[in-house]
Amino acid sequence: MRNDAITAVAFDAYGTLFDVFSVTTLCEQLFPGTGRALAHLWRTKQLQYSVWRSLMERYEDFWRVTEDGLVYASESLQLDLTAAKRAQLMAAYLNLAAFPDVRPGLEALKHSGFKLAILSNGAPKMLGAVTKNAGIDTLFDAIVSADEVRVFKPSPAVYRAVAERLAVQMDALAFVSSNAWDVSGAASAGLTAFWLQRAAGEPPEELGYAATRVVSSLPELAERLARS
Amino acid sequence: MRNDAITAVAFDAYGTLFDVFSVTTLCEQLFPGTGRALAHLWRTKQLQYSVWRSLMERYEDFWRVTEDGLVYASESLQLDLTAAKRAQLMAAYLNLAAFPDVRPGLEALKHSGFKLAILSNGAPKMLGAVTKNAGIDTLFDAIVSADEVRVFKPSPAVYRAVAERLAVQMDALAFVSSNAWDVSGAASAGLTAFWLQRAAGEPPEELGYAATRVVSSLPELAERLARS
Repeated sequence: MRNDAITAVAFDAYGTLFDVFSVTTLCEQLFPGTGRALAHLWRTKQLQYSVWRSLMERYEDFWRVTEDGLVYASESLQLDLTAAKRAQLMAAYLNLAAFPDVRPGLEALKHSGFKLAILSNGAPKMLGAVTKNAGIDTLFDAIVSADEVRVFKPSPAVYRAVAERLAVQMDALAFVSSNAWDVSGAASAGLTAFWLQRAAGEPPEELGYAATRVVSSLPELAERLARS
Repeated sequence: MRNDAITAVAFDAYGTLFDVFSVTTLCEQLFPGTGRALAHLWRTKQLQYSVWRSLMERYEDFWRVTEDGLVYASESLQLDLTAAKRAQLMAAYLNLAAFPDVRPGLEALKHSGFKLAILSNGAPKMLGAVTKNAGIDTLFDAIVSADEVRVFKPSPAVYRAVAERLAVQMDALAFVSSNAWDVSGAASAGLTAFWLQRAAGEPPEELGYAATRVVSSLPELAERLARS
């Protein structure tokens, strides 16, 4: 690992900076007893639709894919998703909670002089809203969406987009994700890939491209990168 | 639907002609109490790895992807997958049971003069073995693998490959799958797509390309195509 050469750090958004299961509370309020199941199936379908649409060469943005996932999940669980409930749940996606270690980790990295970016499948309006609502929007030098290349991660085109936007070489860029498949995608594309595993236990994906290193929090990452 | 123009019918293999959960019995024998969970997670990872590798532009054939899925599923469930158990489970994939309606349905279609093919993500050696072991290999005019184009379904390149091999136009080709995402992929690629739903209940995928028609068995499909 050539940490000494790293000048910029890009972060996945959903599941990494923001807790996608923070919608579970609202799901449970709207559909008592089925909220957890709905939140999980919704997330599963959102990810499936992003990769299937990419492979089908039928790109639609992540807002659409997220809403389609919600519709499927509700039908599958035989829930009555009224227009009002649908709007309420989609709005929750703009107000996801940032994990508690996010702000201190980002501030430490910024203090050490790293350029910071988000690289996410999320649509630009989603990323703009969620970072602003979590009060961390001003910490980033760039917010890069897969929408710019109209294909989703783990396509290498998406990872290249953030290097281009930050005007850094691929080997000067670290990428951080809590999604193991996203870590493999970044490593396969040539980035130094950190797997942020806040709770240990989950095995790495068998995709042939391992994380350069596993960290358990963003402050730990900041310390590691500053030291090198 | 221009059924009158259809001259050839291609079938998905896994889940459509062959019951992938027929490995559950062996899973349960080898890992009592966890067999069902292993079979389901194995299938989930097999599908995920096929699409992620396609998007990552890191194709490996379906045998490899299937074995990688088994390794992940075993680790995730903390099962001791010895080399012997691994070999035994992989071998089971070459001996999947065909659903009971498969032979009568294929024979009826053949009798009506349709060209028949398999179009599967499966590697050629897997498809050769599973069709021979189920005693239905001689019913097909062609067995087409995604391996020929080195990308997996639902990429349109895969669906085009079977039309080319059978030397028929896309609009003369029907495609049949029990996997709703595969039906959407085929419909998006321009084929007449039948969703074989042996047990009702599962909603269609929200991918924007619906099945031309839903059928509940292959003899029902044969009757419908012969009548038109």
